[in-house]
Amino acid sequence: MKIGRETIPKTAISTSDADAIVVRGKDLCRELIGQTSFSDYFLLLLTGQPANETRRRVLDATLVAIAEHGLVPSVQASRMTYAAAPEALQGAVAAGILGCGSVILGASQNAGVLFDDIARQVDEGKSVKQAAFDAVTVMRHERKPIPGYGHPLHKARDPRVEALFRVAREAGADLRFVEIADAVEAVIPEIIGKDLKLNVSAAIPAVLLGAGFPLNALRGIPILARTASLIAHMLEESEQPCGFALSYQATQHLEYTGDFPPGYKR
Amino acid sequence: MKIGRETIPKTAISTSDADAIVVRGKDLCRELIGQTSFSDYFLLLLTGQPANETRRRVLDATLVAIAEHGLVPSVQASRMTYAAAPEALQGAVAAGILGCGSVILGASQNAGVLFDDIARQVDEGKSVKQAAFDAVTVMRHERKPIPGYGHPLHKARDPRVEALFRVAREAGADLRFVEIADAVEAVIPEIIGKDLKLNVSAAIPAVLLGAGFPLNALRGIPILARTASLIAHMLEESEQPCGFALSYQATQHLEYTGDFPPGYKR
Amino acid sequence: MKIGRETIPKTAISTSDADAIVVRGKDLCRELIGQTSFSDYFLLLLTGQPANETRRRVLDATLVAIAEHGLVPSVQASRMTYAAAPEALQGAVAAGILGCGSVILGASQNAGVLFDDIARQVDEGKSVKQAAFDAVTVMRHERKPIPGYGHPLHKARDPRVEALFRVAREAGADLRFVEIADAVEAVIPEIIGKDLKLNVSAAIPAVLLGAGFPLNALRGIPILARTASLIAHMLEESEQPCGFALSYQATQHLEYTGDFPPGYKR
Amino acid sequence: MKIGRETIPKTAISTSDADAIVVRGKDLCRELIGQTSFSDYFLLLLTGQPANETRRRVLDATLVAIAEHGLVPSVQASRMTYAAAPEALQGAVAAGILGCGSVILGASQNAGVLFDDIARQVDEGKSVKQAAFDAVTVMRHERKPIPGYGHPLHKARDPRVEALFRVAREAGADLRFVEIADAVEAVIPEIIGKDLKLNVSAAIPAVLLGAGFPLNALRGIPILARTASLIAHMLEESEQPCGFALSYQATQHLEYTGDFPPGYKR
Repeated sequence: MKIGRETIPKTAISTSDADAIVVRGKDLCRELIGQTSFSDYFLLLLTGQPANETRRRVLDATLVAIAEHGLVPSVQASRMTYAAAPEALQGAVAAGILGCGSVILGASQNAGVLFDDIARQVDEGKSVKQAAFDAVTVMRHERKPIPGYGHPLHKARDPRVEALFRVAREAGADLRFVEIADAVEAVIPEIIGKDLKLNVSAAIPAVLLGAGFPLNALRGIPILARTASLIAHMLEESEQPCGFALSYQATQHLEYTGDFPPGYKR
Repeated sequence: MKIGRETIPKTAISTSDADAIVVRGKDLCRELIGQTSFSDYFLLLLTGQPANETRRRVLDATLVAIAEHGLVPSVQASRMTYAAAPEALQGAVAAGILGCGSVILGASQNAGVLFDDIARQVDEGKSVKQAAFDAVTVMRHERKPIPGYGHPLHKARDPRVEALFRVAREAGADLRFVEIADAVEAVIPEIIGKDLKLNVSAAIPAVLLGAGFPLNALRGIPILARTASLIAHMLEESEQPCGFALSYQATQHLEYTGDFPPGYKR
Repeated sequence: MKIGRETIPKTAISTSDADAIVVRGKDLCRELIGQTSFSDYFLLLLTGQPANETRRRVLDATLVAIAEHGLVPSVQASRMTYAAAPEALQGAVAAGILGCGSVILGASQNAGVLFDDIARQVDEGKSVKQAAFDAVTVMRHERKPIPGYGHPLHKARDPRVEALFRVAREAGADLRFVEIADAVEAVIPEIIGKDLKLNVSAAIPAVLLGAGFPLNALRGIPILARTASLIAHMLEESEQPCGFALSYQATQHLEYTGDFPPGYKR
Repeated sequence: MKIGRETIPKTAISTSDADAIVVRGKDLCRELIGQTSFSDYFLLLLTGQPANETRRRVLDATLVAIAEHGLVPSVQASRMTYAAAPEALQGAVAAGILGCGSVILGASQNAGVLFDDIARQVDEGKSVKQAAFDAVTVMRHERKPIPGYGHPLHKARDPRVEALFRVAREAGADLRFVEIADAVEAVIPEIIGKDLKLNVSAAIPAVLLGAGFPLNALRGIPILARTASLIAHMLEESEQPCGFALSYQATQHLEYTGDFPPGYKR
């Protein structure tokens, strides 16, 4: 069935024949394997351009920052899935990745879109402060949450924020989006009425956009980072299982709010 | 519901409070962000031990080797899924990861188990050649495929194999499992009757086991590597879609082998 | 970690002890198994209310209408996944379900929201025609596609539409949303400039909302229906594989638009 | 890339043109929508044959029996995923389905294979009792669990077992596999040394195989059934969320067994 206009698939990422595999114009076996770190290769795959020092350092910092935060919901979902289906590691990792959504780990992308929008308003002549104020006001009117601000555990600024900003400075990244992220934090109390501090999901686009990382790939950062951590959790689960213990604990204080059939002993 | 014996979940990977996140005994913000590459962090997450130069180089080489090979089936599945559900990048990546199974990308783990088994027979006194011969003979009797040998496209040795072996030598890894992998290749024609050459899925455990990578985490290598590549494909799909073009082409020569209702015009 | 306000999980769907399983207030083994069809049970699970004849007939008709349409993209993704990972049927079905997204099968839910919105405008005094005109005009201004109108294959009205409307009439469902769906079709040419006919994704909410099916569960209809069909495709795939043949065909006319390394023979 | 021998995809399930959709030789719009229940349609899709009364009743009973059992691990995983990614209902359902694995819900298929194997031994002349004894003894030697026997909650026979057997008798199904399932239960204490009672996962193949349901589609039963229940849980989650409350409770008694950095206050 023909859906959409295109009928000929096209890709610029890779081609191959029996003798060679070409990735982004390079010979995989002669020019990449053994000569490129995984982080650099990810940048090459994404952008078609070789990594530079600034971009690599900032990317590594963000992947390290977001990969692991203990038995968060998506890790629990993944460990429960692995306990139930140990024949399919890929399925357990997939279940964990499916929890990288708009509420929990997808905020990086949305915060990036917000910062990009503010940057464009600044390019058109507004001050950073004014542009931030206007953008947050619009979101408030549309009753949208401000993505990347506030954290259930870290009520002061999430400690990962400062660590990422430090790396961006030391690596020589453009700090323009860091400034924007700070400006958004500063205007939130007046507009929202709550003091929501920058969290890691806003810090990630703030540093990555300044290092030239593509806006539309931001959501890939938590997905790639979490995959590494999920694999570590699955290795631990295979050696010291806790998936079923988690589900047992989860329902220890469960309330059933429905009806009972006649004669059911509670 | 209590399933299994454990009721208290345990983990050694991470803990946190409002001020700090601890990962594998390190303070994430003070000791890891900005000081550790993503590959090193993956090794730390997996093993609890800091990476060393040999292990990092071999790991990076395997991740680079397996991440991308064009529009293979799992990438096609992922791009079709993204075209149908662009609101959920995580779902499209998950669909691609679900294709890292026993037939296509899971062979790394199975080949690792085979090599580990041969290594133990060698420890008990057999020659490498004899142990390889015996192990392949058993698999032949059980009608199991030899995981990591033979490739649909690369009929001579998959060019990634030599590249990975070269990195292992240069990085100073233990070459014992490389020797075993070669020995298996050498005995296959006599036992199987076909000349199946080492492919990348066997080369990966051959070099990683010699660098001290945990056997039970081998299946994580293609999963992590492919996640990076899938994110790049999804970025391309968002800019230059081909998911529906792939599905259109796929059915251009479809044969319907069922019945038709009376009066249906073919 | 505490996310959100609730700390005590609550559910009204099911509870159990060693002797009995209670579902929606009924004893599963005494009152449901053997006495309830799967469709009726689905309605009970969803709504907490026993099915009635109208709702069951309309529900069955929609599930039958949307379950199967040949080797559509999500079925292809699922068959490719199963071919690569035959150890995990659940993973292949999951991959297929992940393609029930906003573009392809999720339109039912969105069309339902549109019809519900029009119905509320009618309740406030507008004519159906005027409310449909106003709602489509708003979507046009927001550059949103009209969900459930137009089909890549069925350029005249999708034949499933009339079949579903007939069932709704015969089953005695409220036809109010059918009228609204017709009204939207009628105003589209004037506003959009193209003659987009009702497709099955708009017909499903048109008949289900009139039978009292919950608006927020509409997206579950294609998911449940497709799961049945995906299981049939996986059974066929296990007996007569075509997953890899589909991926082979899909790339027969692939265009590689990237660079080549020096010396690469094309 | 050509993987495997086949290059032309074939299917007997469905074909279509602009005017009609053919499923299993029937015109979908004229012969199926409005005339077939979803359960019957599932049987038609799977087998290519119209349903009969016995098969339909037994199928409905098994789907109803296995669909829902409260907040089991896969439902928890699904609700946590939906809470984190509410934009993608399909992803949350997929996460729940991924928990239909070899340990939890996949036992139906494995029990079916065991019963089928015993039936073939009986066809070759053994008594049911002897064949059951021999088959369980082999599994014991191979240290495999007996699929479908024992339950974490229902220590006496799972109450769903008797309900399913009653339906099979009343619906006129062949009771041969019920007899085999009973025989396996009877020999377990002597061979295994524990009194493991039949659970629902063994009862499902016991009744379905006797109704002519295809052995290789057994694993589809819990997948289809659970999908219905997952959709109901997602509707409840959207109205009365508990996904994050479950993950909060799950870690209330978590033990961190790793190291702490110097100076970390516990």
